[in-house]
Amino acid sequence: MPVPLIFSGRFVCAALLAVTAGAGPAAAQDWAHARANSNGPLVLQSQGSFFVGGQDKTSDALNTSAPGAGTITVNQMYVQFQVPVGAERKTPVIMIHGCCLSAKSWEETPDGRMGWNEYFVRSGYSTFLPEQVTRARSGIDATILNEIALGLDGKTTKDIPYIYSLGHEDAYTSFRFGATNGVPFQGEQFPVAYAEEFYKQLIPDMNDFLGAGSPPGLYVGPNPTYNDLSQLAIELGGAVIIGHSESGFFPENAALVSTQNIRGMVSIEPGGSCTTANPETVPLTSAQIKTLATVPTLVIFGDNLSGSWLTSYANCQSYAASIKAAGGDITLIHLPDIGIRGNSHMMMLDKNNLQVANVILKWIAQHVDGPHRGGH
Amino acid sequence: MPVPLIFSGRFVCAALLAVTAGAGPAAAQDWAHARANSNGPLVLQSQGSFFVGGQDKTSDALNTSAPGAGTITVNQMYVQFQVPVGAERKTPVIMIHGCCLSAKSWEETPDGRMGWNEYFVRSGYSTFLPEQVTRARSGIDATILNEIALGLDGKTTKDIPYIYSLGHEDAYTSFRFGATNGVPFQGEQFPVAYAEEFYKQLIPDMNDFLGAGSPPGLYVGPNPTYNDLSQLAIELGGAVIIGHSESGFFPENAALVSTQNIRGMVSIEPGGSCTTANPETVPLTSAQIKTLATVPTLVIFGDNLSGSWLTSYANCQSYAASIKAAGGDITLIHLPDIGIRGNSHMMMLDKNNLQVANVILKWIAQHVDGPHRGGH
Repeated sequence: MPVPLIFSGRFVCAALLAVTAGAGPAAAQDWAHARANSNGPLVLQSQGSFFVGGQDKTSDALNTSAPGAGTITVNQMYVQFQVPVGAERKTPVIMIHGCCLSAKSWEETPDGRMGWNEYFVRSGYSTFLPEQVTRARSGIDATILNEIALGLDGKTTKDIPYIYSLGHEDAYTSFRFGATNGVPFQGEQFPVAYAEEFYKQLIPDMNDFLGAGSPPGLYVGPNPTYNDLSQLAIELGGAVIIGHSESGFFPENAALVSTQNIRGMVSIEPGGSCTTANPETVPLTSAQIKTLATVPTLVIFGDNLSGSWLTSYANCQSYAASIKAAGGDITLIHLPDIGIRGNSHMMMLDKNNLQVANVILKWIAQHVDGPHRGGH
Repeated sequence: MPVPLIFSGRFVCAALLAVTAGAGPAAAQDWAHARANSNGPLVLQSQGSFFVGGQDKTSDALNTSAPGAGTITVNQMYVQFQVPVGAERKTPVIMIHGCCLSAKSWEETPDGRMGWNEYFVRSGYSTFLPEQVTRARSGIDATILNEIALGLDGKTTKDIPYIYSLGHEDAYTSFRFGATNGVPFQGEQFPVAYAEEFYKQLIPDMNDFLGAGSPPGLYVGPNPTYNDLSQLAIELGGAVIIGHSESGFFPENAALVSTQNIRGMVSIEPGGSCTTANPETVPLTSAQIKTLATVPTLVIFGDNLSGSWLTSYANCQSYAASIKAAGGDITLIHLPDIGIRGNSHMMMLDKNNLQVANVILKWIAQHVDGPHRGGH
């Protein structure tokens, strides 16, 4: 249970160090929950952040005023990490966020509970949290907009890339907090009382900047993030990649760049489907299926599936059958089927988020770090 | 000294836990430095992230295709934090990044050394790292671009806000790695051998989105980040705010919203100047000077000042005189004057970054947490 935190004058009072359970503070300071936790001190061997990938690009449109010309770096992927003491026995875990989100997805929940990042670290895993190219600390290539603002090469407003802002109302239903905005499903696990806090972490999806010049639509072409994820796994000397939603199939796309050092793939509710590398354009070939079958895979879906989520689930069932036919080790879990009910699309933030994390940790222990590795 | 890290197969090898000094690994994996550090385990009481501020906004231009209408949150400020065991005796520290940067500024350096965030935490301070509204995890209001793409209200390419990408060449000279691109100053403290790694953390400055509709130019009007910083200090029950470059005078701007619970202000090389709240528009009034004089202030400049940096330094000297005349406690330090030479504009990443941090920590101990608090 979170502990109320009271700051008194300029001193952080002793409540900060208390680890006893207590009632929550006033709503206005609910975020303060997390500064005192009941899980005991967290002991890190190290932490930090770095970049993977990135290429130099020269441009005359760095700005719409001087200096307009120069070199910038594009396609670099930011990664933050934490290494717990004792991590040497377990495979590092990479967690990549979904649409309209950042690595914040894996941190503290909107209602101030521990997120998956800290839980995995406390479970002995090194964690690596990238941000997709075009998102948050990875940055975008702004020359695309500046060229339009400057009218270079006859560019007009029609050339502005598609930018996707997920509205509160759409998030509530599409992320399955409820079938109707403001009316949670019975037994809903998402902390809907804190939905307003959650909406603050929704930021514009600018992935279409990666395909600037192509027809409008959420960009689904070859994405530099695939290559950067592959490179990260190689540099780590081995990693499990966990993707979610828009990035749900990114682990597989990274493995199609290179399976080297990708020890496991976890696809949480892939937003498009499991059956194609680039959902709207490129069906997976049998050679690609054969490649993907060499890496142990876990696919997870939550509760209250309907509409496009049912389609995605059906696609993943077909994908799992293909991988099995190719001799692969794949596990597809519909959480209600194992007695875990009420989970939303944002299961890493749900009230039972650690219960869901345990499903993944158990799978990693058995299929990646354990005796069944690579088998099925 | 950083320790080389070797990952062997799927196991992170025992080198991860070694704390002896050693030669660096190959350049391609230099980022791995930081995953093994020689500073001993880091013990946190808690960590997490949350948002401050934010307002709901309804729009018909969330996207350039359906669903176009709905509600988003704007002006929220993301904050990540770490609380060390024993932090109850020291005032929390807020560090806000500068232009074209994110909270990454305070994390691991480009050459894999400890950043100011971890050093302050290891020194017993709780740290809070916000990202400016419009930057990284705080997000932007993309409806401004979508309205242009859709041609709403007759908007054209002329309405695209100013977006500032800092090029490598300009960064090298304006951040004072050297007077000429590629030629470091003698005794330069920035780790110029890792400049390419540093450039990866430069992301577009989209602050002009805050003044969409106003004349083009880097936005300098009232900024929601000021209010969010003030609110953060209030919610923390007391904090020192450290600003840098573009945000160098943000601590003071936050104090002009409310001085409540702002215990100290540290302005590192304010990019515009010290003499006005909004450099190009609003001179500080004597009433504002009187308000600012109630909060202990530290202003720091590095070495090799010339051009606009000399102007900024002169402005800050005038500002310090005004604050002193109003009875305030202000310290202006030109680092070479205290024997610390060669520091760049990015002094939190310089090779002697911990030496510079110690100047701030000593000032906080004496002027904020110590007996001189509020006096001079």
